[in-house]
Amino acid sequence: MDIKKEAIKKHGEWKGKIEVVSTVPLGNKQDLSLAYTPGVAEPCLEIEKDRNLAYEYTRKWNLVAVVTDGTAVLGLGDIGPEAAMPVMEGKCVLFKTFADVDAFPILIDTKDTEKIIETVKLISPTFGGINLEDIGAPRCFEIEERLKKELNIPVFHDDQHGTAIVVIAGVINALRLVKKDVEDIAVVVNGAGAAGTAITNMLINLGVKDILLCDRQGILYPGAPDNDPHKEDMAKITNKNKKQGLLKDAMEGADVFIGVSAANTVTEEMVKRMNRDAIVFAMANPVPEIMPDLAKRAGARVVGTGRSDFPNQVNNVLAFPGVFRGALDVRAKEINEEMKLAAAQAIAALIAEEDLHEEYIIPDAFDLRVADKIAKAVAQAAIDTKVSRI
Amino acid sequence: MDIKKEAIKKHGEWKGKIEVVSTVPLGNKQDLSLAYTPGVAEPCLEIEKDRNLAYEYTRKWNLVAVVTDGTAVLGLGDIGPEAAMPVMEGKCVLFKTFADVDAFPILIDTKDTEKIIETVKLISPTFGGINLEDIGAPRCFEIEERLKKELNIPVFHDDQHGTAIVVIAGVINALRLVKKDVEDIAVVVNGAGAAGTAITNMLINLGVKDILLCDRQGILYPGAPDNDPHKEDMAKITNKNKKQGLLKDAMEGADVFIGVSAANTVTEEMVKRMNRDAIVFAMANPVPEIMPDLAKRAGARVVGTGRSDFPNQVNNVLAFPGVFRGALDVRAKEINEEMKLAAAQAIAALIAEEDLHEEYIIPDAFDLRVADKIAKAVAQAAIDTKVSRI
Repeated sequence: MDIKKEAIKKHGEWKGKIEVVSTVPLGNKQDLSLAYTPGVAEPCLEIEKDRNLAYEYTRKWNLVAVVTDGTAVLGLGDIGPEAAMPVMEGKCVLFKTFADVDAFPILIDTKDTEKIIETVKLISPTFGGINLEDIGAPRCFEIEERLKKELNIPVFHDDQHGTAIVVIAGVINALRLVKKDVEDIAVVVNGAGAAGTAITNMLINLGVKDILLCDRQGILYPGAPDNDPHKEDMAKITNKNKKQGLLKDAMEGADVFIGVSAANTVTEEMVKRMNRDAIVFAMANPVPEIMPDLAKRAGARVVGTGRSDFPNQVNNVLAFPGVFRGALDVRAKEINEEMKLAAAQAIAALIAEEDLHEEYIIPDAFDLRVADKIAKAVAQAAIDTKVSRI
Repeated sequence: MDIKKEAIKKHGEWKGKIEVVSTVPLGNKQDLSLAYTPGVAEPCLEIEKDRNLAYEYTRKWNLVAVVTDGTAVLGLGDIGPEAAMPVMEGKCVLFKTFADVDAFPILIDTKDTEKIIETVKLISPTFGGINLEDIGAPRCFEIEERLKKELNIPVFHDDQHGTAIVVIAGVINALRLVKKDVEDIAVVVNGAGAAGTAITNMLINLGVKDILLCDRQGILYPGAPDNDPHKEDMAKITNKNKKQGLLKDAMEGADVFIGVSAANTVTEEMVKRMNRDAIVFAMANPVPEIMPDLAKRAGARVVGTGRSDFPNQVNNVLAFPGVFRGALDVRAKEINEEMKLAAAQAIAALIAEEDLHEEYIIPDAFDLRVADKIAKAVAQAAIDTKVSRI
């Protein structure tokens, strides 16, 4: 099957992958008088008295906005909001299919950070959560940070945290397999954009002590002339020895390589110089930083990619539906670090000790247990950290 | 049945009257590769080349935003965006049930006219149409006017035009019954807010020559000290004889009274002084300007209200689903005067000459022929006036 041809044909037949349907009967005047006027005035008046009752009498409790400005869509880059719609609809389909979340695409026709923030804030009363999607770095960091601060519903940038959660799950399981402790390992993250930043932050929260974050110029270090404020911040919380050098220097002796960068940026030579039982996540799409067979030949014990045709696929689908399900279920006012870590641990724990092997450290995207397990773990973490409101 | 108690109970059980569902299968990796990555990149790239293809490959063609700031909800007034949600969800249910339009509530958390306009513009790429709802006058006029000018998708303020379309349908049929010509009649409209203004404009487009528009101070006339810019404009296009006086003075000799004002503002005495075969639409809710039995006793031949428990209910449900269905079907870039008039005429024409009588001048809200008939008439008017894009 030619995926490209088939996908365009199917999209032309589907004419949209989502639909907004009614949950109520409307067959006669009495139905109308309950669901609409005059009866509808009653829940309105109750919510006017107590805005929290919106969670009881409307769909707010289960509605998530999938928000994009269309600037960093898949690997396609800045294609504009309209052209991002097929991806956003796809995301909404995944939310509904895997976790029964009602997600709706909101395409924003501006690249202005302040306007994006204000727009999301102004339309937030409809929603129980905000999923930011395919918004370019570094704008995405400020947008997420500000919205988290200024809204009291969960805000989650999936390109950052969804990816990070699944990678961390993979790291946890790979370490189980190679019997290394998280506190002892050296990790190299290549790519300092949305995903690389979130992965780095989660590695720190997981307890990793030795992290080098690289961009196209090489290892990030404090005071580097090319550092924007974001990279300067990241350089300060990584690179404990203030090392300078290229990616190949960073990888020397490393236990784990995590690539969210570009095709073919890692050579066999570089993998050979890593520590024993090297773990390689090469997630550039569609062509990884190094192909799995080459990485294996160079000595890597565990290899993961972003592709469904290789083992250990890092697929966001594993994370975001369950994360939001859990947050919505306990009406969490945010998705905090503990909740994200709980999600990663829940994904990792789905693979029992006896099933764990080099080609099975991350559950399958269609493993139907995943979303439910994550939801329960995330909800519990929300309760434990007191961000749950029920 | 106690409607209030039952409505609150039902809303608590429903926990939201809408749901966002998937239209595509998603049972295995191949489904995922078509509806999501990597296949989804193809329609994205096509739309990037030609934004109109969003109508082919996404749900834009059928998506309508139901937008409110929560300032003029039902008869409840300014209850805020969250509290307006039950009404907005109800509206979305009606859109889907009567005309298969996918409507989604957008609650906007500001009363600032410019911010509302900007927000709707910024999120408009998702949608094929905008239905403004329960936004207070006079702000609603500027918001609608500006959005109509600045967007190239249909924008429709239902509280204005939906009501007006159904009233005009009622006027057309009442005139058929009493055998008066539209050019010869004198009409009084009481209430110069959203609905009264739209009704007045449609009466002019219908060909009515003699209209007096009244507010609480009485007949609007050019140069009146209380006139805001909007009322001054309306005074100039009505009141051809520059008459001054109270509502009772306006009604003397009138053929048609249309009330979108307040309970009990019309007395039997006032109806008695109207012309023979008087037509009275008393649409204040829940208590009309004059009760139908009193109006009849005072000599009115045809009486309509906003209530479902009296004959001739003026119910917006008759208009907006079919109007949007028609506009969306031909991808109209606006809903113009000709399309609205075509909708009113289509509603009126549903009642055959032999069925028409004093208590049946407006079709029943559950007449399932209505939306389809309106849609066809609206689509044809869009084609005739060259605002259709297919």
